[in-house]
Amino acid sequence: MTGNTFGKAFAVTTWGESHGQGLGVIIDGCPPKIPLTQTDIQNDLDRRKPKNVPGSTKRKEPDRVEIMSGLFEGKTTGTPIALVIYNKDADSRAYKDIKEVFRPGHGDFTYLKKYGIRDHRGGGRASARETAARVAAGAVAKRILDQNGIQVKAYTVELAGIRVERCDLDMVEENYFFAPDKDVAQRMEERIKAIKASEDSAGGVVEVRVMGCPPGLGEPVFDKLDAEIAKALMSIGAVKAVEIGIGVEAARLLGSECNDELTPNGFVTNRSGGILAGISNGEDIVARATVKPIPSIGIEQKTIDIQSRPTTISVKGRHDISAIPRIVPVCEAMVSLVIADHLLRQKALK
Amino acid sequence: MTGNTFGKAFAVTTWGESHGQGLGVIIDGCPPKIPLTQTDIQNDLDRRKPKNVPGSTKRKEPDRVEIMSGLFEGKTTGTPIALVIYNKDADSRAYKDIKEVFRPGHGDFTYLKKYGIRDHRGGGRASARETAARVAAGAVAKRILDQNGIQVKAYTVELAGIRVERCDLDMVEENYFFAPDKDVAQRMEERIKAIKASEDSAGGVVEVRVMGCPPGLGEPVFDKLDAEIAKALMSIGAVKAVEIGIGVEAARLLGSECNDELTPNGFVTNRSGGILAGISNGEDIVARATVKPIPSIGIEQKTIDIQSRPTTISVKGRHDISAIPRIVPVCEAMVSLVIADHLLRQKALK
Amino acid sequence: MTGNTFGKAFAVTTWGESHGQGLGVIIDGCPPKIPLTQTDIQNDLDRRKPKNVPGSTKRKEPDRVEIMSGLFEGKTTGTPIALVIYNKDADSRAYKDIKEVFRPGHGDFTYLKKYGIRDHRGGGRASARETAARVAAGAVAKRILDQNGIQVKAYTVELAGIRVERCDLDMVEENYFFAPDKDVAQRMEERIKAIKASEDSAGGVVEVRVMGCPPGLGEPVFDKLDAEIAKALMSIGAVKAVEIGIGVEAARLLGSECNDELTPNGFVTNRSGGILAGISNGEDIVARATVKPIPSIGIEQKTIDIQSRPTTISVKGRHDISAIPRIVPVCEAMVSLVIADHLLRQKALK
Amino acid sequence: MTGNTFGKAFAVTTWGESHGQGLGVIIDGCPPKIPLTQTDIQNDLDRRKPKNVPGSTKRKEPDRVEIMSGLFEGKTTGTPIALVIYNKDADSRAYKDIKEVFRPGHGDFTYLKKYGIRDHRGGGRASARETAARVAAGAVAKRILDQNGIQVKAYTVELAGIRVERCDLDMVEENYFFAPDKDVAQRMEERIKAIKASEDSAGGVVEVRVMGCPPGLGEPVFDKLDAEIAKALMSIGAVKAVEIGIGVEAARLLGSECNDELTPNGFVTNRSGGILAGISNGEDIVARATVKPIPSIGIEQKTIDIQSRPTTISVKGRHDISAIPRIVPVCEAMVSLVIADHLLRQKALK
Repeated sequence: MTGNTFGKAFAVTTWGESHGQGLGVIIDGCPPKIPLTQTDIQNDLDRRKPKNVPGSTKRKEPDRVEIMSGLFEGKTTGTPIALVIYNKDADSRAYKDIKEVFRPGHGDFTYLKKYGIRDHRGGGRASARETAARVAAGAVAKRILDQNGIQVKAYTVELAGIRVERCDLDMVEENYFFAPDKDVAQRMEERIKAIKASEDSAGGVVEVRVMGCPPGLGEPVFDKLDAEIAKALMSIGAVKAVEIGIGVEAARLLGSECNDELTPNGFVTNRSGGILAGISNGEDIVARATVKPIPSIGIEQKTIDIQSRPTTISVKGRHDISAIPRIVPVCEAMVSLVIADHLLRQKALK
Repeated sequence: MTGNTFGKAFAVTTWGESHGQGLGVIIDGCPPKIPLTQTDIQNDLDRRKPKNVPGSTKRKEPDRVEIMSGLFEGKTTGTPIALVIYNKDADSRAYKDIKEVFRPGHGDFTYLKKYGIRDHRGGGRASARETAARVAAGAVAKRILDQNGIQVKAYTVELAGIRVERCDLDMVEENYFFAPDKDVAQRMEERIKAIKASEDSAGGVVEVRVMGCPPGLGEPVFDKLDAEIAKALMSIGAVKAVEIGIGVEAARLLGSECNDELTPNGFVTNRSGGILAGISNGEDIVARATVKPIPSIGIEQKTIDIQSRPTTISVKGRHDISAIPRIVPVCEAMVSLVIADHLLRQKALK
Repeated sequence: MTGNTFGKAFAVTTWGESHGQGLGVIIDGCPPKIPLTQTDIQNDLDRRKPKNVPGSTKRKEPDRVEIMSGLFEGKTTGTPIALVIYNKDADSRAYKDIKEVFRPGHGDFTYLKKYGIRDHRGGGRASARETAARVAAGAVAKRILDQNGIQVKAYTVELAGIRVERCDLDMVEENYFFAPDKDVAQRMEERIKAIKASEDSAGGVVEVRVMGCPPGLGEPVFDKLDAEIAKALMSIGAVKAVEIGIGVEAARLLGSECNDELTPNGFVTNRSGGILAGISNGEDIVARATVKPIPSIGIEQKTIDIQSRPTTISVKGRHDISAIPRIVPVCEAMVSLVIADHLLRQKALK
Repeated sequence: MTGNTFGKAFAVTTWGESHGQGLGVIIDGCPPKIPLTQTDIQNDLDRRKPKNVPGSTKRKEPDRVEIMSGLFEGKTTGTPIALVIYNKDADSRAYKDIKEVFRPGHGDFTYLKKYGIRDHRGGGRASARETAARVAAGAVAKRILDQNGIQVKAYTVELAGIRVERCDLDMVEENYFFAPDKDVAQRMEERIKAIKASEDSAGGVVEVRVMGCPPGLGEPVFDKLDAEIAKALMSIGAVKAVEIGIGVEAARLLGSECNDELTPNGFVTNRSGGILAGISNGEDIVARATVKPIPSIGIEQKTIDIQSRPTTISVKGRHDISAIPRIVPVCEAMVSLVIADHLLRQKALK
C-alpha cells in the first residue's frame, strides 16, 4: 500500500529510481504567494552533491531540478508544486554483476521478497538517490520556515568514531563533512582516507537543530512532534537510531538530572530537546540520527544469489565510504518537512 | 489538526483524558471473523496495572475494558471495534495545586501554549493513562498476529542504570519489571527503592522483539517498517530515543562489522534488527526505546506559574518512580499495531 | 480497509451497530475554546427522533448523547471529542426472521458477501441508526460554523411525489416533514398515510442550503467542495443521487442559460449552487439528495435465503414509510461536517 | 490543505497547469508485476484528444505521456509510477484578455478568492487539461481491473437535449460522441453545429458502467462505493449531478417499484445500480454524471473585472461547445480509479 507520501498539511509524495528516467516530488498543500526560485532548491541539492573528497563517489551527478508546476510569476500558487530531477548519469551496466546476488546490508533481498520483482540497477527505489527528491521538497519547506523565522540546520557530530568537540554552526558549510568544528573535520578526513584504503566503510551521527520554532507545534497523541521527527529521520535508509534532546542518556539519569527547570526567562536547560509531551516548547529542537556504515564494501563478504546458492561479494567501484556528509542535507530536509507540516497543521486549530 | 489516529489499514483512533469520563479507542480495518473476547484485551490491560512494588502508584486502577461494537457471536465483523475504559478513580482534587503551575518535564506548559486552554487534572490528554487505550488496541492487533504466527514481546533491558545480562523471554512475566533476567530484577527493585527514598525518579530501556514476522513488510520510502516503529515508540510520552538492531552502536562500527552476511541458511547475524531498506527480512525485528525518568519528583524544582511568576514545585503523592514497568506493555502494543497494519497493507499489494 | 472516518482537518470516525452496546463518534481536530454543551448536541439528535406521525416507527428511541472527552469547563480543549449514544431499545428478537433471508434493497446480501459474516440484528452497521452518530458530530461542527457566521439548513423539497411550491425556511421546524412550505406538509401527510395503508414506502428529495459561507472553501482538484458534498450525501444509506445548484437540469440548458453573470453587487443568479471550479463563491451553497423509498415493505417480495433457495419476504412491524423526515437532519449534519472541515483546511493555507 | 490525491490503496496525486511545463500524476500503491506499456496509457489519452468535429477545439494537442518510474522490463515494480505529459501547445497570449476579468461559470473568481493569486493562463489548475492526468492514471487502474475480469465503460446518453434510445456498447467507439447509439450520434452532431452557430454551448449526461465487478467492494460507512463514485465524478469540473442506478427517479417511485428482487439466478432488476448499502452486489455498477454546458461562450455576458468594475465578456476562439465527448474518458478513468482502489482495499480485509 501507499508509503511514498509524507506529511498531512504540507504533503510530499516522491517517485523515482536511481536508473529510471529520473526522480521527483509533488508538494501538495504549500500555501500560496511564497516567493520561490529554481535556485532556492538547486542550492540545497548542490549541498548533497558528491564532493571531491576521499570517500565520495566519483560520479558526476548534476541533479538539476526543474519546477514543473505550482509557480506563477515567481510565487507559489497554492496548487501542487512538481519538481523533477532527470537521471543523466545512469550507467546500469555496472550493476549487471549484482543482478543475481543479494548485497549484504542492502535492500536487494527484502525488495525481492516484498514485490517478487526488483529493479536491481543501482538499488532501484532503495537507492540513496531517492533522497534528492526529499532535499528538493525540503528546500520548499524552508521557504515557509523562513517566513516564520524558523531555521533548520543539520551537521555532523560524529564520523568514523571521531566526535566534534565544539559546536560552531558557522563552521558547518566550511568543511566537507558539515562538521560544526573545523579542527575535527581535518581528522575526519584522515580517518575516512584510512578506512577507504582498507576497503571498508564508516558510520556516524548527524544532529539537526531547529531554531526559532514557536511553542505549540506537534499533535497529541500519535503525531507528537518528536514521533514525527523520529519517523522522518528513520525513514532515511542508513539511519539506525533517533534521539531527541539527551536521547539515550535519559536511561541513566535521575528525574532531577533530566527535567528542565523553568524560570521567567525560559527553560534553564534543554535536555528535552525542545519538545514536551510531543509539543514544541520554544527552545531549540534537537534531534540526532545514527548513520550506519555504507553496506557496499570492497572487503569480501558471504552472501547468496537469487537461487539461494552461497557465493561471495566484494563491491568495487564508485561508492561513498560513508553516507555522511551527503546524508546531512537529507536529515535537514526531513526535519524541515516535519516543521513546515506542523506549522500549517497548527493554523487549522486557530 | 488530527493526530489521534495511528495506522492506515489497521487504523486506531484514541480519545480520553485521565480525569474525564473515560478513555477509549476505535479500531477501523480489523478483518472479519477473528475470534475476540473481552478477556483477550483485559489480560493485556492488567499487565499495565500498577503493581504492589516500590515505586508504583498506589491508585487502584481497575481499567475494565468494554467492547462496544464490531463483535458478533464472539467474532469480529469487519466493522469498527470500539473499546471503552471508564475512569473510576479520578480524584481531581489532588491536582488543584498544579492548576496554576507548570510541572517541569511535563506537557503543562506546551499544552497551554498550543491550545490556549488545558485540562490540568492529572495531565489531561497528556496523561500516561491515555496509553491504556493503546494497550487495548494492541491486544486486538495481536489476535491478527497470532493467526499469522507472529509474536511481539516487550521487556525491560535496563532500569535505573542496571542492565539485564541475559535474555530469557520466559522470565519476562515472572518479575515485576518485565525483565528477561530474574537475577537482575531483584537488583532493580532495590535500586528503585533507594531512588524512591531520595524522592527522585529513574529511566531505563525497553526492548521489543517481533518473532515470526514474514519478510516483505514495510512500505518504501517514508513508511519504512523501522520508520513506523520509530514513530510508534517515540509517540509514547516518556520515550527519548528509538534504536533498531544495533542502534546507536552503528555509528562506531565499520561496514564489515555492521553488515549481516547471508548464507543459504539465513542471515549469519542480526545487526540490522530484522529490517533492511525499511522492509522486514524474516529475522526477529528488534527495537529499543529509551525511557526518561518520571518528571514528577518530590525533590523541589524551580518553575513558573501561568502568570510567568517564579515558584517552586515538589510533587508528592501517588506517583510511579519509573515509567518502567508500566510502559512495557505499551511498547509491545505500539509495535503490534505497526506489524498488524503492515501485514494488512502488504495484502493489498498481492 | 478503513472507511469509517470522514474529513481531514475536522475528522469524525463513527462506530456502532443498531443492536450492539451503542454507537458513537470521535471528533479529532476540533479547535479549542469552543463553547459546547450536551444540549447543543441533544437538540439535533432530538430532531432525528421518530415523530408521532403516520409512517414513522413506533420505537421509543431516547438516543441520549454523552460527551466522554475533549471538554473542560464547558469548552473544547482541542483534544478528541468522544460522543456515545447507548442503545436502550434494542430488541433483537424481532430480527430472527430475517437472519437467514436477504431483504431486497438492504445490505444483507452485500455485507455477507464482503465480510463472510454479518450482524443481522436490525441491519447491524448498515442500520440507519448509524446516522445518529453523524448528527451528533454535525452538531459539534455547527458550533464552529456558528462562530464563523455560517448556517446549514436541510429541508424536504419533495416527498412521495409531492413537491414544495415555495421555500420559507422559517416553516421548516414547524411541520413533521421539515418542509419549507406549510401547506404542502399537510398533503404530504395524507399521501404518506395512503402509502402506509398499501404497505408500500416512499422516497423524496432533501435540499441542503449553506448560508453565509465565505468564498474560497474547497480544495482543487479531487477534494472540490461539491465533490466532498456529493460524497457526504451519497454516503447516507438511502441516497441515490446528488445535485449541486441546477443539478440534472444542467444537461438540457445552453451555456447562456446556465452561467451566472457577475455584477459589482454579486452574482445575478445562483445556478452554480454557490460553487465554481470546486470552490465556494460566497453565494448560498445548494445541494439536493434524492432519497429512495424505504426497502422494508409489507408487500410480499421475492428473495433468497443464505443457501440461495428462493423464498419470499414481507416485512411487517415498526418501520418508517420514508427515510424522510428522519434523514433531513442527517443531510444537514453531513454538509456541516464538510463545511467545517474545509473551513479549517483553508486556514492551513494562510 | 491537500486535495490533489485520490484513493487510499491505489492513490493518485496529480499536478500541473494548462500553461505550465506540463502535467502529471504519481500512482502510489499499484501492485507489482502488472504488465504496462506506454501504449496502454497513450491509447486512453488519445480518446480524450479533440476530434475534427464541429464544436471541438482546433488545438493540436499531442498529449504524449511518458512513464518516468515504477516500471522495470515492462512490468510494474510496486513502487510509484510517475507519468508526465509535457505541455507543447501552450500559447498563453490568447489569455491576456481575461487576465483581469472573471469569466462567468469559470473558477477565475473563486481561485483568486481562495489563494489571493491565480495563474490566469488557460484556467491554470482549473483547466480541463488537468483531467489528462486522471485519464493516464485511469489507464493504469484498468490494467489491474483487466486482470480481475472487470471492465469500465463510459458513454454519452444525452447531449444537448438529445437522448440515446438504445444502448449498444459496441457502438461507443464508433462515433465522435461516444454514444452507444449510432443513429442518435448523427443528430447530436447536427444539434451541436447549430449551437455552435449561435455561439452558445451545450451540456449532457455521461453514463459509466462497470461490468464484472465482484460483490463485496466498498467500505462502510463513509467510503461506500457509491459515495466514492459520487465524489470521483463530481470532482470533474463540469459535473453538476451524480446518479447511481435509477438515480433521481427514486424520489417518485414506491418501495415496491424500487427494490430489486432476488432469485437463485441473481437480481431480477438493477435499479440499485449494482450497489447495496454502499457495497457492490455483483450486478453492473451504473452511474451517471450530468455535465453542464461549457461556460466559455461567444454570446456577450455581464461580468466584473478584478477591481469589481462592471464589464462584459464574449469568449471567442478555440473552445469546445460541450465537455462531451472529451469528458467521457475522464468519467471512465475516475470510476476505474475507484474500483481499483476498492479492489485493493478489499484484499487487506482477507
